[in-house]
Amino acid sequence: MRIALDAMGGDNAPQAIIAGALDSIDDLNGDQLVLFGDENQILECLGPPKRWQDHISVVHAPEVVAMDDAPVDAVRKKRKSSMALMTKAVANGEVDATISAGNTGAFVAVSQMRLRNLPGVLRPGILVVFPTFAGPVILCDVGANIAPKPAHMHQYAQMATIYARDVVGIENPTVGLVSIGQEDAKGNELVKKVNHLLREDRHINFIGNVETRDFLNRPADAVICDGFVGNIVLKLTEGLAEGLFKAIKLEIAKENPELLEKLQPAIDRLYSRHDYNEYGAAPLLGVDGTCMICHGSSDARAIKNAILKTQKQLRLGINDKIVNEVKNKTS
Amino acid sequence: MRIALDAMGGDNAPQAIIAGALDSIDDLNGDQLVLFGDENQILECLGPPKRWQDHISVVHAPEVVAMDDAPVDAVRKKRKSSMALMTKAVANGEVDATISAGNTGAFVAVSQMRLRNLPGVLRPGILVVFPTFAGPVILCDVGANIAPKPAHMHQYAQMATIYARDVVGIENPTVGLVSIGQEDAKGNELVKKVNHLLREDRHINFIGNVETRDFLNRPADAVICDGFVGNIVLKLTEGLAEGLFKAIKLEIAKENPELLEKLQPAIDRLYSRHDYNEYGAAPLLGVDGTCMICHGSSDARAIKNAILKTQKQLRLGINDKIVNEVKNKTS
Repeated sequence: MRIALDAMGGDNAPQAIIAGALDSIDDLNGDQLVLFGDENQILECLGPPKRWQDHISVVHAPEVVAMDDAPVDAVRKKRKSSMALMTKAVANGEVDATISAGNTGAFVAVSQMRLRNLPGVLRPGILVVFPTFAGPVILCDVGANIAPKPAHMHQYAQMATIYARDVVGIENPTVGLVSIGQEDAKGNELVKKVNHLLREDRHINFIGNVETRDFLNRPADAVICDGFVGNIVLKLTEGLAEGLFKAIKLEIAKENPELLEKLQPAIDRLYSRHDYNEYGAAPLLGVDGTCMICHGSSDARAIKNAILKTQKQLRLGINDKIVNEVKNKTS
Repeated sequence: MRIALDAMGGDNAPQAIIAGALDSIDDLNGDQLVLFGDENQILECLGPPKRWQDHISVVHAPEVVAMDDAPVDAVRKKRKSSMALMTKAVANGEVDATISAGNTGAFVAVSQMRLRNLPGVLRPGILVVFPTFAGPVILCDVGANIAPKPAHMHQYAQMATIYARDVVGIENPTVGLVSIGQEDAKGNELVKKVNHLLREDRHINFIGNVETRDFLNRPADAVICDGFVGNIVLKLTEGLAEGLFKAIKLEIAKENPELLEKLQPAIDRLYSRHDYNEYGAAPLLGVDGTCMICHGSSDARAIKNAILKTQKQLRLGINDKIVNEVKNKTS
């Protein structure tokens, strides 16, 4: 299989991206990586061809989508960006998957504009695997669709179920719906309608509404919400975890700087369980193609993990499973 | 002034509530507390009358709203609960304010049903003072109105501005709007419309959209959102802060139990800055009456802080200021 990688996207691009690509060579098992971006920069980072030439190829892209470009501009004006060209390649079947740590809004917009939806899928959604102390929780959607209809969210529950079962490996995964109270009657109109749809669907192991207070306790294997709420939950969690760890370190250093040194292993251990780099990438599910969104601050390890996760998703045929599931349930 | 206190509401009621009432006696400055609830239980907790009889009176209420009663049942079926009777008392002008640490949904529902809105106010909103390491952030609404119209949220910005300025003491407070990106064009339809209204209002120091990633850095003095999102943000923050502190303690104990003892002061210091008990109570702003919502787990200190905060709000005439502000801006 051929996996396209946006060499120019991310806070640490192209170095971290290319380092991640090189680190993954031994695990590719015959798959090919195609790096999109500035050819000269890429070749310089790749170093001596002997190491990579059997596994990696390069496609020159003269433009770059900046981290702060408006998504609509990225779509309309930068048609020769690494992001645009690799998305075209997946649309044309020249590659099987795309990975980018660049401007998330732009990557999602380009992917949604240039790729068809999978047959039967109404709207794509971004799925993240959310690290908690009790294990990973799946959250979908976290921003692809900020004004979903109930039927879209029903499909997010179907796609998240497949992902939880086949990619994460959870048997008969439970699904929860984000609301402001556990009772079915709690929530806004959208949530009440989705609750009803999920209650009716015997193929989804729906456990009802869940509250964000319980997120660290893993209230369900997969948690469904609209993209506006999901994006807010994701960013708040990131910001809080990072801020709290920083504050705790500062406070301990004030108390006794030597203690901080002694505690570093415990803090690192804990932090790694909250570290998005461990989880690699978030799929944009529902488009006809495999698009993996990496965190902007991805390091080489995150990129390598994203590549491995993309391979897994491709080999498992997740898109075919989604098409079947959606067909069965909506027919 | 007369302040009604729900003696039966909260996880630690009636003991903690009554202990908080007794602790506040020296700070009442002539104000009176009226305890609503089971008279026998209250009198037993109050102890010898000599200490409190000049400051506290008791009104018997034969029913209690349980923490898990449905709000609608609390309103319709328990008309002689402490919550219902004290709300009737504030509606009739017999007391000036109500405080409850009981079932929040029920307290808000009872207050919204039995009290008029202040003249010009379209929908009440719950305002919380959200503790962050960079200082307090005001958040409104956190759950009174889960399907607001743009005009409701405009008024939340007006009310939050008054509260930030007069109660918290911030000159020309900045207002931010929760969204999924800082640009004005980012967000769902509701957010875009509210953004436009706030941009147009010269009396509000609107700094634009804010992202939840930045909450711990205090992106604005007051942050506005719809009640569904606000409730999710509030509960997620509570759950995460609590969970992270617990996890950190556990991890340190694993590393070295003696260290945990040495670090306890640093952790306590940090935790107290995230402690809702410090902030006492969240006002339901916009109703004709002063209704203060306490956290269910309030201890005596939280109740005392709530009483002091209620006094402050009454003395500052916050409701009159809201009426004036809303009249000026909507005429």
